[in-house]
Amino acid sequence: MKTGLDFLLAAKRCEIDGLQRLAFTATLVDVTTRLVHNLQRERGLTNLYLGSQGKRFAEARLAQLVASRQVEAEWRAQFERLDASAAQAGHGARLFSRIAYVLQGLDGLEALRQQLCGGAWDTARATEAFVRLIAALLAVVFEAADSATDPEVSRRLVALFNFTQGKEFAGQERAAGAALFARGQADAAEQQRLLHLIESQERCLEVFAAFAAPETRAMLTAPHASNTLAELERLRRVLCTAAHGAALKPELSQTWFDVCSARIDAMKGVEDRLTADLRATCSTKIDQAERELASFGTLASQPAPDPLVFYLAPADAPAVAPPGAPQGFGLPIDRSVLELVHDQARRLQAMGDELEATRASLNERRLIERAKGLLMAHRQLSEAEAHKTLRQMAMNQNRRIVDVAEAVLAMAEVLPPR
Amino acid sequence: MKTGLDFLLAAKRCEIDGLQRLAFTATLVDVTTRLVHNLQRERGLTNLYLGSQGKRFAEARLAQLVASRQVEAEWRAQFERLDASAAQAGHGARLFSRIAYVLQGLDGLEALRQQLCGGAWDTARATEAFVRLIAALLAVVFEAADSATDPEVSRRLVALFNFTQGKEFAGQERAAGAALFARGQADAAEQQRLLHLIESQERCLEVFAAFAAPETRAMLTAPHASNTLAELERLRRVLCTAAHGAALKPELSQTWFDVCSARIDAMKGVEDRLTADLRATCSTKIDQAERELASFGTLASQPAPDPLVFYLAPADAPAVAPPGAPQGFGLPIDRSVLELVHDQARRLQAMGDELEATRASLNERRLIERAKGLLMAHRQLSEAEAHKTLRQMAMNQNRRIVDVAEAVLAMAEVLPPR
Repeated sequence: MKTGLDFLLAAKRCEIDGLQRLAFTATLVDVTTRLVHNLQRERGLTNLYLGSQGKRFAEARLAQLVASRQVEAEWRAQFERLDASAAQAGHGARLFSRIAYVLQGLDGLEALRQQLCGGAWDTARATEAFVRLIAALLAVVFEAADSATDPEVSRRLVALFNFTQGKEFAGQERAAGAALFARGQADAAEQQRLLHLIESQERCLEVFAAFAAPETRAMLTAPHASNTLAELERLRRVLCTAAHGAALKPELSQTWFDVCSARIDAMKGVEDRLTADLRATCSTKIDQAERELASFGTLASQPAPDPLVFYLAPADAPAVAPPGAPQGFGLPIDRSVLELVHDQARRLQAMGDELEATRASLNERRLIERAKGLLMAHRQLSEAEAHKTLRQMAMNQNRRIVDVAEAVLAMAEVLPPR
Repeated sequence: MKTGLDFLLAAKRCEIDGLQRLAFTATLVDVTTRLVHNLQRERGLTNLYLGSQGKRFAEARLAQLVASRQVEAEWRAQFERLDASAAQAGHGARLFSRIAYVLQGLDGLEALRQQLCGGAWDTARATEAFVRLIAALLAVVFEAADSATDPEVSRRLVALFNFTQGKEFAGQERAAGAALFARGQADAAEQQRLLHLIESQERCLEVFAAFAAPETRAMLTAPHASNTLAELERLRRVLCTAAHGAALKPELSQTWFDVCSARIDAMKGVEDRLTADLRATCSTKIDQAERELASFGTLASQPAPDPLVFYLAPADAPAVAPPGAPQGFGLPIDRSVLELVHDQARRLQAMGDELEATRASLNERRLIERAKGLLMAHRQLSEAEAHKTLRQMAMNQNRRIVDVAEAVLAMAEVLPPR
């Protein structure tokens, strides 16, 4: 017959299983961000190549194709290892569904490249195709973040997801700006889209900053990063303030691409640091939990306690971990199973609360994205316009944008179908 | 190499795994509510027995002990089957931790009975011991509700948890009232506690009503249930309005116990219906999901679609399921994997949103309970006083009680340690 101690141990093993699952998720997130990075470069080079009517960047693009294909193969190999039985029910189904969607895109990627090479699609359409695939990949990272069962790992995943999403907006900005310079003429709609991409980028980096460790945040404000940003801001000004139809210097296309790339490469450094930290956190937590589990083994040999102890113990202290309390138990010398069960329950409760707080930021994002999608579908708005509409409503009503998004979604049921 | 279809199937299998886990959880919840019911009867009879100085109810109590022991053995056998590897990481750890706590109580139950039989403890202390054990069992039901991955099952579990908790307040009311009548003298503090138990009961039944199916709700307002309630309300008035120290008729103890028992037995009928519905819902959903999974099998033999379809499909419709949309897909004849992936993603998203909404009520409960615990610990209040304090703060500040609870918990960090 299983005892209380058995279930105490089972709870710990559950935690360890969850952490091991997270450690594997971290490797999936790692390879996903690397694939995104390569597709971003491919998108940028493809746009330069198309923008120059195939006269320039052919070699750089071909070299990038080799790199992209290599990381894609690695991505497929890693996800091949993902086992349905190892996943959590609710999150697992969502994660697998996202992966199924990505595979639809990857399976068509070579056909897309041929299509683009043939010159049948313009840069806007080429960009849109890559944006769609990258968004599908980022949705995998989002689900991974949403499935975390440990608050510290969850915070790191939320920081990483927002950073990677911000970097994707930076990548879209690079592609859009490069195409605009290469075309040699300012365009009001494209300029509006650029401003929206810059703003979205900044929003993501704010959330990243709220969840990231200070030393990682500091990487973005290092001197050389600031120099790059200053040059980028100058070029942004040139691009965004030109009157509609005014001439742009096509030779700045390369400069723009290089400056954006320098910034994105620096961001890639931060991203690598974030994924490395994520994996290290998982390892540390697994080690710690396994030490705790091992230390519980000595409990079985303790003398049996007073059978009435459950009924005699003082009523529960509030399940609030005092600030700065250590995460682990320490060695349970001279501690009864009941005390350990109390400690464990309190700690798991505190972890659950922390997790809810972190996941709230993901939920907000989900609500805002869905409200935007609804506005785009029902009012035929672009993503940028839908976002502007939500922001304007929030300002007019003096409410948070997430509250407005919720109100929009609540309206969904009374809207006529498309 | 796994394909998109493989991951589409894996997502479905994940859902089925989750539902099967829930079906097993439903059997655990079922036996837990039955054990609670028997412990409630044992508590009531023990109080009558102790209140009469062992002169009456000895036989009825002994018969109840036999029944309690039998359900306890069944409970232990069912939980023995619970496998750590089958549980979800976050929720699993919390559930196992709760079970470990319950086992500490069950292991001391025979010692408790001997203690009570010896007459060393008064009725208040006896009641408190049973309340503690039952609360530990209800925490298991709470975690089960919190771990549901399907919104419909989650709603049913939330209804069931609140109903069972309401029934427990009714059980505490029965025990407290019986003891008060048996003692033959009104007591202001005990009367205050009775009023608190009645109010808490009504709050739980309100949440139950918000989540339960109409036909289940109707069982509580059936004619014979109303008759019992009318008689109960008359006795409540006798008990609660007697002046402090005034005489109460000890012979009403039996009447009170019978009326309360009639009501609680009617509630047990509702509870049985809720657990039966819960299990039926799980079975239906598993069957449906398995039919869908089987129907996906025909997809593999479909001709390969245009590889560019991922990039050519119209942009995502908003991920909001139209009202009244069927939960399943129907047979995927003539539908591409991409369309099914889209449908699946949209459906999982809608399910996730519904689930968040249901779980919000559990989170509110958790916050309020923790805030009460904090007030009890830091200001040496009883549970009833802590609740009254929160309610008073909410009224004074014109805020919801859950918002006040959150504010109290936010204050926790600045409060001095006990």
